[in-house]
Amino acid sequence: MNEKLVQSTGNGLQSSIPKLNVAVIGAGLVGSLAALNFARKGYEVDLYEYRQDIRTAELVQGRSINLALSQRGRKALAEVGLEDEVLSTAIPMRGRMLHDVKGNTSIVLYDSCTKQCLYSVGRKHLNEVLLNAGEKFPNIHHHFEHKLSPFQEDAEAKADLIVGCDGAFSAVRQQMIKNYGFNFSQEYIEHGYLELCIPAKNNEFQMPANYLHIWPRDTFMMIALPNQDKSFTVTLSMPFKVFADIKTPKDLLEFFIKYYIDALPLLGEEKLIKDFFKSKPQYLLSIKCNPYHYESKAVLLGDAAHAMVPYYGQGMNAGMEDCSLLFSIISQTGITLDKALLQFTESRWRDAHAICDLAMYNYVEMRDLTKRVTFKCRKFLDTTLFRFFPTIWVPLYNSVSFTSMPYNKCIANRKWQDKILRNIFYTILSGALVTATALYVTNL
Amino acid sequence: MNEKLVQSTGNGLQSSIPKLNVAVIGAGLVGSLAALNFARKGYEVDLYEYRQDIRTAELVQGRSINLALSQRGRKALAEVGLEDEVLSTAIPMRGRMLHDVKGNTSIVLYDSCTKQCLYSVGRKHLNEVLLNAGEKFPNIHHHFEHKLSPFQEDAEAKADLIVGCDGAFSAVRQQMIKNYGFNFSQEYIEHGYLELCIPAKNNEFQMPANYLHIWPRDTFMMIALPNQDKSFTVTLSMPFKVFADIKTPKDLLEFFIKYYIDALPLLGEEKLIKDFFKSKPQYLLSIKCNPYHYESKAVLLGDAAHAMVPYYGQGMNAGMEDCSLLFSIISQTGITLDKALLQFTESRWRDAHAICDLAMYNYVEMRDLTKRVTFKCRKFLDTTLFRFFPTIWVPLYNSVSFTSMPYNKCIANRKWQDKILRNIFYTILSGALVTATALYVTNL
Repeated sequence: MNEKLVQSTGNGLQSSIPKLNVAVIGAGLVGSLAALNFARKGYEVDLYEYRQDIRTAELVQGRSINLALSQRGRKALAEVGLEDEVLSTAIPMRGRMLHDVKGNTSIVLYDSCTKQCLYSVGRKHLNEVLLNAGEKFPNIHHHFEHKLSPFQEDAEAKADLIVGCDGAFSAVRQQMIKNYGFNFSQEYIEHGYLELCIPAKNNEFQMPANYLHIWPRDTFMMIALPNQDKSFTVTLSMPFKVFADIKTPKDLLEFFIKYYIDALPLLGEEKLIKDFFKSKPQYLLSIKCNPYHYESKAVLLGDAAHAMVPYYGQGMNAGMEDCSLLFSIISQTGITLDKALLQFTESRWRDAHAICDLAMYNYVEMRDLTKRVTFKCRKFLDTTLFRFFPTIWVPLYNSVSFTSMPYNKCIANRKWQDKILRNIFYTILSGALVTATALYVTNL
Repeated sequence: MNEKLVQSTGNGLQSSIPKLNVAVIGAGLVGSLAALNFARKGYEVDLYEYRQDIRTAELVQGRSINLALSQRGRKALAEVGLEDEVLSTAIPMRGRMLHDVKGNTSIVLYDSCTKQCLYSVGRKHLNEVLLNAGEKFPNIHHHFEHKLSPFQEDAEAKADLIVGCDGAFSAVRQQMIKNYGFNFSQEYIEHGYLELCIPAKNNEFQMPANYLHIWPRDTFMMIALPNQDKSFTVTLSMPFKVFADIKTPKDLLEFFIKYYIDALPLLGEEKLIKDFFKSKPQYLLSIKCNPYHYESKAVLLGDAAHAMVPYYGQGMNAGMEDCSLLFSIISQTGITLDKALLQFTESRWRDAHAICDLAMYNYVEMRDLTKRVTFKCRKFLDTTLFRFFPTIWVPLYNSVSFTSMPYNKCIANRKWQDKILRNIFYTILSGALVTATALYVTNL
C-alpha cells in the first residue's frame, strides 16, 4: 500500500497506473483547491464539507469576510488556471494607509519599486470560483453537509488518501495527534477580534479603496479591507479584557471617540453599536504540528496543518502554497505516495512554523512598531536599498508577500540584512569613536 | 454550580455543607494520592482505572519500574501520613556514580553538606501503599478495568468534579483541548528508552546500592537505579536511529563492549540479548498545557497536566506536589470550587512548564555535561558556596530535588547565581586586563 505509485501524467485522465481515491475533508479555500489539483491529475476525488454549500449559504459564520491575496496564493491559483478570474474582481491594495489617533492619515506603500500589491478578495466569492471550477471535473464528487469521523466511516474506508483541509480544529489532525511522534501545539493569544462594517455611501467607498487601512494603537489596533460592494470590512483586534470593559453603547462610543475618531462617522454610531454588541469577540490561535502526514494514508494542508493569527495576511496564501508544493512533489516521476508525503512534511514544516511565528510578530509590528521612529528609519533604509538592489535587498515583508521564497529563508534573509546594517552601524560608530579619541588625545 | 463551596473541615466526615462527588480518573500514583486527599476532606470519591488493579497485576507495562522519590513527593506523602511507610522500604541514593567508557567510576554526591538524598522506590509498591491506604476510607469507591469517555458517561454525569490523573495521553485532557483558550503542546524527543536489568547475584547487589549509576556517553546514556530485591533497573536512552542500527545480538554486544564494558558482565550477555530484543524502545514526550481546569467541573493533575522527559526524576514528584498545592488551596476557608481551580492553574502552570524545560535540559547535562571540565568546575563552585552559605546558595539540582521551592523560582535562583558568578569572573578579568595594560603602557 505504501508503495503505491502516484500518477505523474499532468492533468491527463488516461493514466497508465491505477486511479487513487482521494477523500478531501473540508471544501473551504484550501480543500476546494486541493480537490481541483487532484482532479487535474486524474484522481477520483470525494470532497466532503460539513457546512452547507457556501454558494447557496446565506451567511458564512466565524471566519473573516475578506482576505489579502498575495504572490503565493496567486501562484497556486495560476496553476489551476484561475488567477485571472480571481484577480478580475479583486481590489488591489498598494500600501498601508495609517490612521493616527487624531484622524490624520499617511501612506506606506508595500512596494514603491516594483509596484506589487495585495489584493482584497471576498472569501465567499473565491470559494465559489474554486467550487465552480471543480464542478467541471466529472471525477470530483461534492458532499456538502456531510459530517465525518475520519478513519472511521465507510466513506473514507475506500479512500486511499485522506487530505485534511478541515481548518484549525481539524478532525483529521485530531486522529493523527494520537500517533507516536506527532508533535503539536495550539496557542491562543490574549487578544480577540470582532468584525464591523463601513458601508458604501452613495454607492462609493467612504475611504480610499486601494489601501489596507490600519489604526495602530500600541496594545490594540483596527484594520479595514475594501470589498467589491464598496464597503469595508473592519476588524477590531484587542485584548479580551478591553472588549469586556466595553459594556454599554456609551462605553463603546467613548472608546471610539478616543481611539478611532475618524472611523466613527464612517461606521455610523447606530450601526456600530448594533454590530459590536450582536457578536462576541472571536479567539485567535496559532497551530503548529509535525509531521503533516501519516504513512501514505493521510496528509494535512492549510489551517489544519498550520493555523496562524491573521496579521501577516498569509493564512490563505500559505495554505494554497501547500497545494503548490504537494503537487509539485507528487508530479515527480515515479515517486511513491508515502515518499511524496514524507517529502512534503520535510520540506514544509520549518517554513510553516516560520510563517506562524512571523504572523505573531507582525501583530506587534502592526499595532505598535508602525508608529515608532526606529521602524520608520528601518523602513526607509529597506525601501532605499530595495530600490537600488531590487534582487539582492528584498525587505522581509516583500519577500513574504511578493515572492515565493520559502518563509524560513525570508527570515534568514532578514537576519542577514540585520547583520549587515548592524555592522555598518558599528563601523560608523567605531570610526566616530576613534576620531573623537584621536582628537581628544591630540588636544591633551 | 460554580458557586459551590468546597469543604474545608480537614478530614472530618461530618461537614456542614453538602458532600461533593468527585470522579478521579486514573488510579496511578497521582490519582490514588488525589483520591486519598479528597477522601480525607470528606468528599465522595469514585476512583476509575482502565487497567486492572496493580496490586493483582502480573506485569505493569509501558512505565518505568522504579522511580526517584525526592522532597516534593515526600512532603505530599507526609500530608496523607504515608511518608514513613514508603521510606522504610525505599533505597537511599546519596549521589551519582559515574561510569566512564573504560569502566572507571567516580562519585558526585547530591548534597555533601546536608546529606540529603534521593530514594529509589518501586512504582508498583508505592501504588500499592497508596491504594491500600485508600481502602480504609469508606468514601473511596474503586473501579478497576473501567474505561471511561469523560464528560459522557453516567458514571461521571453524577460527579461534581472530574479529576484527570490519567497520564500523558489523558482522555480528560482530550476533552478540554477543544475548549477555547486551552493552550497545549506535545513534543516528542528523538530519543527513546529501553529498560534492562542487572539481577542480584548471590542475593547481593552487583554494584554499590546507594547511588544512581550513570554512564554518560555524549549523545546517549545509560542509568541504573537499585531495587528492593537487590537488582538494578537499567535504562538505556538514545536516539531511535542508534537503536535501529543495532540489528543483531552481535551488533548489541559490540555496542556494549564499546560503550558499557563494565555493565556487560553484570547484565549478562544472554539476558541482555533477550531483554534488548524482546521490546521496542519507548517514546518520550513533553506535554504542557494551560489552564489545568475547566470551570468548577474538571482539573488535571500529574502527567495529564505536564508530562515530562524522565531526566530530572521529577515527573512523579511534580505530580504529587500538584496534590499538595491543590489541597492547600481547597482548604482555604470559604473558597468556592471554581475559584480554587482557577487559583490552582494560576499558581501552578509556570512551575510545571519550568520543570518540563528543566527535565529536557537535564538530559543534555546527564549524558554530556557531567563529563566536561566546565561542568565539574561549576559543580565545585556550587558545592563550595553551598557549604558556606547553605541557606543562600542552593544549587539548582538541590533546590529542585531537596526543597519545595517553586520550580520557576529554582530557575530564577540559578540565573541569579549565574549572574553573580559571571560578574565575579568579568571583574577578575577586567582587573587583570587593566593591570596588564598599565604594565604595558608603563613599559612603553
